Amino acid sequence: MRIKEVGEFGLIERLKNVLSAEIIGDDTAPVKHGKSTLLLTTDTMTEGVHFLREYLPEAIGWKAVSVNVSDVVANGGYPKWILVSLNVPEELELTYVERIYAGMKRACTFYNCEILGGNISKLEKVSISLFLVGEAERFVGRKGARPGDSLFVSGTLGDSRAGLELILMNKKEYEPFELALIERHLRPTARIDYVKHIQKYANASMDISDGLLSDAWHLSERSKVRLNINTEKLPLSRELKLFCEKYKKNPLEYALIGGEDYQLLFTHPKSSWNPFLDMTEIGSVEEGEGVYVDGKLTKPKGWKHF
Amino acid sequence: MRIKEVGEFGLIERLKNVLSAEIIGDDTAPVKHGKSTLLLTTDTMTEGVHFLREYLPEAIGWKAVSVNVSDVVANGGYPKWILVSLNVPEELELTYVERIYAGMKRACTFYNCEILGGNISKLEKVSISLFLVGEAERFVGRKGARPGDSLFVSGTLGDSRAGLELILMNKKEYEPFELALIERHLRPTARIDYVKHIQKYANASMDISDGLLSDAWHLSERSKVRLNINTEKLPLSRELKLFCEKYKKNPLEYALIGGEDYQLLFTHPKSSWNPFLDMTEIGSVEEGEGVYVDGKLTKPKGWKHF
Repeated sequence: MRIKEVGEFGLIERLKNVLSAEIIGDDTAPVKHGKSTLLLTTDTMTEGVHFLREYLPEAIGWKAVSVNVSDVVANGGYPKWILVSLNVPEELELTYVERIYAGMKRACTFYNCEILGGNISKLEKVSISLFLVGEAERFVGRKGARPGDSLFVSGTLGDSRAGLELILMNKKEYEPFELALIERHLRPTARIDYVKHIQKYANASMDISDGLLSDAWHLSERSKVRLNINTEKLPLSRELKLFCEKYKKNPLEYALIGGEDYQLLFTHPKSSWNPFLDMTEIGSVEEGEGVYVDGKLTKPKGWKHF
Repeated sequence: MRIKEVGEFGLIERLKNVLSAEIIGDDTAPVKHGKSTLLLTTDTMTEGVHFLREYLPEAIGWKAVSVNVSDVVANGGYPKWILVSLNVPEELELTYVERIYAGMKRACTFYNCEILGGNISKLEKVSISLFLVGEAERFVGRKGARPGDSLFVSGTLGDSRAGLELILMNKKEYEPFELALIERHLRPTARIDYVKHIQKYANASMDISDGLLSDAWHLSERSKVRLNINTEKLPLSRELKLFCEKYKKNPLEYALIGGEDYQLLFTHPKSSWNPFLDMTEIGSVEEGEGVYVDGKLTKPKGWKHF
């Protein structure tokens, strides 16, 4: 049997059996060390899969850091130390790699973490794996959503997917709202402003990288609860609405299955809602299983890497 | 300017400037956490560069873990937690990946560390990046060799290079000593039996991955000392000698510039020699600079990835 026949998640299931351990169940792997919990995570960005060579290299570096920081933030931690494993073709311009690093450095300054080192090797394609160690007082994972909780997301959903489609249109000129969507795809910001809130209040939390619906399924399965999503409440940006009007698209589809928003999906009682954060209550947690959208049971769906 | 014009080490120098930090100066990056020091490291193995697809996948997994453990051991630590970032072509057989993982698991059992998770993405070639966190009471790096120290290596040198050449000969049949050399290339063992000794006695330490001469230069530059190597003392295996007789090769060349032995290179006073370890005194540390072989100044030379 080949990998493409079982897909990414099928492969992960098989590998869990080999390791006879429960792995990759959360955005980060928590380990106790001394008095605190360290959160370990790794994410890879590969040319042709996650970005194109002609993207701004600074943006590639920024995003590589952000997607890893997003995992740590989702689990209630602050990022601390990064190692970079970089694969590059040898005919690549030196300045291109320097600019990727400049982008990573700017992101580290923003998120207050540090690149300690790494390793470089040769490959036909540019591929960047980051390894990030974060630290949390309390680990908040996908397990733990309680019936009675409300379901929340940060920010707005679907912008990144719209931005990607705009890039692929390869237009000569873009309108300002289109550039804003492209920016959200190229330079996502991990929600480090939510760490304290997640830490203090969330019963379950993860970041939305595969798309709301797909990620809600992960959370539902791990927490063994039913999640209800109310599409009327999904937070849509003004830019996404303009995009959908112009190109005759359904914004709900973008919000539900568009990936790479790097917003947070989390649950806690309604009463812990924080008016100083851009959080939206999009639904509720009940006893049961599955993800229901407007009362209708859905199938896990989203952005797959295979 | 292109990467191949400056090479791997040139690229690293440039990136240090971008980060305005001293990075990648040792086998691992040490960070203080609580009462102990954590050692962070990453190494990548890529098909076509570090291994061929037709190698036993179990051996690829074993080696991926071993080369990372070797870095931690070299700095006086024990390995603890691993994340795996795996790139695979989607047409690859599922069992191939499972067998890589089986090899990694066996290595983790041997070295007493744990795979916590990781991530999988799509690429034309198999490429495995491992991130390893180790722990040490005291960090022992490349800096710290003192004039008056003796220079030591563990095990024997040059076997791995001979093993690689034998593989590339693609012979129908191999003699037993040839199979032993091939085994040493495919399944190197990190010298975890040296951790306590390095921890307690070494003033400077690193693992020999690029080749003795190249790595001795790194140590000499970081410690700002002169290293003398006496070729008469270089530890050669019986198998390497048989190989060199058979194929009319010079064993010293293999011992000096053959890479991927994953033995240790370290310095401390002669008096701390440990008769229970397979360590050999191959030379001495003096005030000055450069690496001298049999009294003659050498140039940095070894296995480069670019």
